[in-house]
Amino acid sequence: MEKRALLYEGKAKKVYATDSPDSCIVSYKDDATAFNGLKKGSIAGKGAVNNQVSNHLMVGLAAQGIPTHFIRQLSERDTLVRRVAIVPLEVIVRNIAAGSLAKRLGLDEGTRMATPVLEYCYKDDALGDPMVNDYHIRALGIATDAELAQIAGYAFRVNDYLCARFEAVGITLVDFKLEFGKTADGTILLADEISPDTCRLWDTRTGDKLDKDRFRRDLGGVEEAYLEIRRRLMGV
Amino acid sequence: MEKRALLYEGKAKKVYATDSPDSCIVSYKDDATAFNGLKKGSIAGKGAVNNQVSNHLMVGLAAQGIPTHFIRQLSERDTLVRRVAIVPLEVIVRNIAAGSLAKRLGLDEGTRMATPVLEYCYKDDALGDPMVNDYHIRALGIATDAELAQIAGYAFRVNDYLCARFEAVGITLVDFKLEFGKTADGTILLADEISPDTCRLWDTRTGDKLDKDRFRRDLGGVEEAYLEIRRRLMGV
Repeated sequence: MEKRALLYEGKAKKVYATDSPDSCIVSYKDDATAFNGLKKGSIAGKGAVNNQVSNHLMVGLAAQGIPTHFIRQLSERDTLVRRVAIVPLEVIVRNIAAGSLAKRLGLDEGTRMATPVLEYCYKDDALGDPMVNDYHIRALGIATDAELAQIAGYAFRVNDYLCARFEAVGITLVDFKLEFGKTADGTILLADEISPDTCRLWDTRTGDKLDKDRFRRDLGGVEEAYLEIRRRLMGV
Repeated sequence: MEKRALLYEGKAKKVYATDSPDSCIVSYKDDATAFNGLKKGSIAGKGAVNNQVSNHLMVGLAAQGIPTHFIRQLSERDTLVRRVAIVPLEVIVRNIAAGSLAKRLGLDEGTRMATPVLEYCYKDDALGDPMVNDYHIRALGIATDAELAQIAGYAFRVNDYLCARFEAVGITLVDFKLEFGKTADGTILLADEISPDTCRLWDTRTGDKLDKDRFRRDLGGVEEAYLEIRRRLMGV
């Protein structure tokens, strides 16, 4: 499967057309941004780690009955996926207060939520990805009630799987961001990626951050943290 | 019924104990604040208008089966109400985009929402009353799921009643904020006030703003707008 036209270039990935209208190729970059693009940099080897980690987790989720866009990995950084129209929502699940949630609600970072919290942000860089709720989503036509119910249900099931998967390798899943897409026939699939770029992952024993917060907060050891996540999950 | 100890002084009201543990007296002030207290001023006669308008609307809502805190008006500015513990949520219903919603979602002010939008803000001045969703409310224990379902149901019924009530007198209900309280036995009641301080009200024919936005935005004619709302609803 060959890359054809560049369809989209985001902060961390390029997406190419293929010869099939039903698939595209995602190519992971080492570029890193934070704070809605205000901070920019590069994390050596990140693209390869995120591609491999995300594919590994998507395969695990598919085995749990969560439909995903993953078809097959093509190379270290490239993956063939189902072509979807992305639902313009960042779907965020939070088990422990950190980042913007801790700040907004005045919670100490590290406070475990009594129940997992689901948040939606409307994907619009110009607006700064504002938080929206079910009523905004319905009124703006971002998703139908049925689609949103399906997305919320998947998000909690993804959380259950990922919490257990990471816990088994000594990592606490603090929070993460998902994106979903719709195929031409309207099927909702888990899309985008699941990686240290999109999850907060803390070493359960030491509390060390093993995710993009090392880049956001200039903590050093960024590349090593990404490699450590791959090593714990995949043994390489 | 006499005022006893001052229980609480807010931006626009004082609340006094009475001789009964089940009631208190709300006394409406002319003080006005906006932008989370950054702008301060006074609107002559506002306390009297808000007291009378709010009581008038609460009586109408009670007749629709919405339980409210209203017992009886004591004077121009004072009202006897059921004593409740306020659920620390601003419950906002929006029919038309204006104010913070228009800005956050990049909508032109005046855009009618396809369906009414319900929003919750966690009442905490130090945090700036952050927006929260059902999951935050559950995880923080702000309200139980059953209480929140009741509050949401009441909020939409209040919207139906108020839209029709204002439409009948040539006023478009753009959005409004409610607060609910719990009695000692756990019953949820509509509390606080419904007034030009807490609603956006536009003259349907001219589009003139007849609410606190005249104060927020220095549009002049603030006192007249408040009086006009009372006149349209109550004929005085």
